Amino acid sequence: MQGDSDNRNDRGTVSIDGPAHGGTTAAGGAAQPAGHAATAAALRGHRRAFLQGAAASATVAVAAPAIAQSGPSVRWRLQSSFPKSLDTLFGAAQMFCERIDRLTGGRFQIRPFAAGEIVGGLQVLDAVQNGTIEMGHTASYYYIGRNRSLAFDTAVPFGLNARQQNAWMYYGGGLDLMREVLREFNVMHFPAGNTGTQMGGWFRREIRSVKDMQGLRFRIPGLAGEMLSRIGVLPQVIAPADIYSSLERGTIDATEFVGPYDDEKLGFAKVTKFYYYPGFWEGGAQLSMYVGLKEWEKLPREFQQAIDVASAEINVNMLAEYDAKNPPALARIQKTGVQVRPFPPDVMAAAQKAAFQIYDEEAAKNPSFAKIYANWRAFRDAQHSWHRTADLSFDNFVLSNPLSGQPAAPSPAKK
Amino acid sequence: MQGDSDNRNDRGTVSIDGPAHGGTTAAGGAAQPAGHAATAAALRGHRRAFLQGAAASATVAVAAPAIAQSGPSVRWRLQSSFPKSLDTLFGAAQMFCERIDRLTGGRFQIRPFAAGEIVGGLQVLDAVQNGTIEMGHTASYYYIGRNRSLAFDTAVPFGLNARQQNAWMYYGGGLDLMREVLREFNVMHFPAGNTGTQMGGWFRREIRSVKDMQGLRFRIPGLAGEMLSRIGVLPQVIAPADIYSSLERGTIDATEFVGPYDDEKLGFAKVTKFYYYPGFWEGGAQLSMYVGLKEWEKLPREFQQAIDVASAEINVNMLAEYDAKNPPALARIQKTGVQVRPFPPDVMAAAQKAAFQIYDEEAAKNPSFAKIYANWRAFRDAQHSWHRTADLSFDNFVLSNPLSGQPAAPSPAKK
Repeated sequence: MQGDSDNRNDRGTVSIDGPAHGGTTAAGGAAQPAGHAATAAALRGHRRAFLQGAAASATVAVAAPAIAQSGPSVRWRLQSSFPKSLDTLFGAAQMFCERIDRLTGGRFQIRPFAAGEIVGGLQVLDAVQNGTIEMGHTASYYYIGRNRSLAFDTAVPFGLNARQQNAWMYYGGGLDLMREVLREFNVMHFPAGNTGTQMGGWFRREIRSVKDMQGLRFRIPGLAGEMLSRIGVLPQVIAPADIYSSLERGTIDATEFVGPYDDEKLGFAKVTKFYYYPGFWEGGAQLSMYVGLKEWEKLPREFQQAIDVASAEINVNMLAEYDAKNPPALARIQKTGVQVRPFPPDVMAAAQKAAFQIYDEEAAKNPSFAKIYANWRAFRDAQHSWHRTADLSFDNFVLSNPLSGQPAAPSPAKK
Repeated sequence: MQGDSDNRNDRGTVSIDGPAHGGTTAAGGAAQPAGHAATAAALRGHRRAFLQGAAASATVAVAAPAIAQSGPSVRWRLQSSFPKSLDTLFGAAQMFCERIDRLTGGRFQIRPFAAGEIVGGLQVLDAVQNGTIEMGHTASYYYIGRNRSLAFDTAVPFGLNARQQNAWMYYGGGLDLMREVLREFNVMHFPAGNTGTQMGGWFRREIRSVKDMQGLRFRIPGLAGEMLSRIGVLPQVIAPADIYSSLERGTIDATEFVGPYDDEKLGFAKVTKFYYYPGFWEGGAQLSMYVGLKEWEKLPREFQQAIDVASAEINVNMLAEYDAKNPPALARIQKTGVQVRPFPPDVMAAAQKAAFQIYDEEAAKNPSFAKIYANWRAFRDAQHSWHRTADLSFDNFVLSNPLSGQPAAPSPAKK
């Protein structure tokens, strides 16, 4: 669309409502310093600056009584499914709460809690449903025990990547379909973050073909574990605190987690030799913002708007943060000597076949799943027909034709 | 990150500020219907529902005087660089203005104008700079005549894709660097939309190798035209209204535009035989929201927050809308018999070499460009080292291993 728009249109001036140059009727002088506070948020490390900006702005608010707001004061609690140590995931909930506070001039305050501070990380749906907390930031696939349809709200094996998930949620009918399911749990929800495609995980031994998956003791729960069990893997359920020692002792052969930035903190490079990609069970894992439906319906319209728009912001922001933080983390991991390898194609082909068998079987017995799956699968096919052209060919070209001096592969096989 | 978080943390209950179950102190009953209005926005066709929801909510506001706001009333004008016919691009500005209105309870109203309604589509920077309009929604690369550094705010040939652009802007220092440049034009700005990788354009004849680019009369302006001129293309500047007849008469051999959804409207399939991809000069073209710096600094803090967060929303939303609308448009285009083809690799290799020669030459004589380019290029290299692993391998697998019955290629060569 290079430089086209100038001549696309008539340039005639039309009649304009309102003053010719617009006009700010606010007590502009009093609010002036806020510009600098917000400008500071542009600094590298967007969220950190964002939080610093919040402190700076609080001072401004005191100095600007002319823009003080009347209206209700609402205080809520939000629990994340994630610990503070996963600062990208938990940090999104913090950023969300700060934004709501600043958008509403402090009239709507939501306090973020980490997993375990009010309820367990996987109890967020229950806690929102029963009114223990007004909001939760979580991943819907943690609750597939309640309804397996909920997996589509986060990620299913060989499902949508982050862009495709957004397209499905916002414009493909996905959000409406998922809200139908969550309404049964008294929950209103919004897409609120994405990890991008995750890594496949840490392996003590090499995977050369699908045969090497036979009998592999792989810590991987949920639908992904069920899929892999169909190609011979023995899925293990182990608390994260015990993964390291289980790998060290050889009680398990492999574990999945998230991506380089989060994984690095757990030190698995010390007790495994291989770091495989991609995490084909999470091509783009979406996080979701849950709001208790009754609380939602009582909320003033402007506060509803604030939740909606601030969720969209952390949806785009979290992916950007992961994309910025993963490359240096991957480079550090490679320096430990761990071999970064792609899964063999036959492993992925066998797993994909198993995944869609599971979906077909579930659709045959779960009407909710069947309804969503039909929409989702048609949308996925259409997405592929498009992403196969411009985006994929561009990405493949630039990634396989680096400028001189740059390696084409993330990690040549080292022995 | 399948099902991990439950055991990652202590589950002890800690002391909580505020009431045990939170509490809404608003006149909840009066605001109740707003829940349904906002829920309607979840319907397929997110923006359409969004605009309908705005009308529904206006009624609610009248019925809920308890949440009426005091504070300033500000009316601004925003001009888009795009005509109403490009409904995804112009529609983003409309969505932005609606969101601001609803976020602020009508206290901050921005009226969107299409290209040409106040000034020409390519005069948005000037108009914001000189105060004719308070805001503009545009693409910074339209203004490279003022400073070629501005191209990095939108897209440069063989640059970042949409995700990488967001990572650079929000977390890689890009936004801060670009704001330094735009501040010289009295502009504060925010990322506000992305097209994804565009198509390469419509060609009357086949391109089998870089030799076929020799003497090609290709309507393509800007840096992209400069790059292609170095591999033998004769770049043409032609007003969009004249492209169709120029192609029909053979005055030009080819033209680029945007992607299937926008391109389809212009009917180029009737006068060309080939539709090439990718548009390697726009791997992810970012739109930007401009605000006059003086107006910005006078704005109450909450209204600044509203602009910031609503820009982030249309940033994620526009890409989702394009991704949802492009696949059916591409399918319709294919039905016309036009052949959808990838550019030959040697064309892209020669063009990439030319592009980076241009950047190196510009950096040698433009300190602003040199500063941004150094940051951008290091960030690009790091992004590639990461995207080459999980995301690309996932995308390549699912796109080249379709489930049975689905074609692997978007368009087999037809003769």
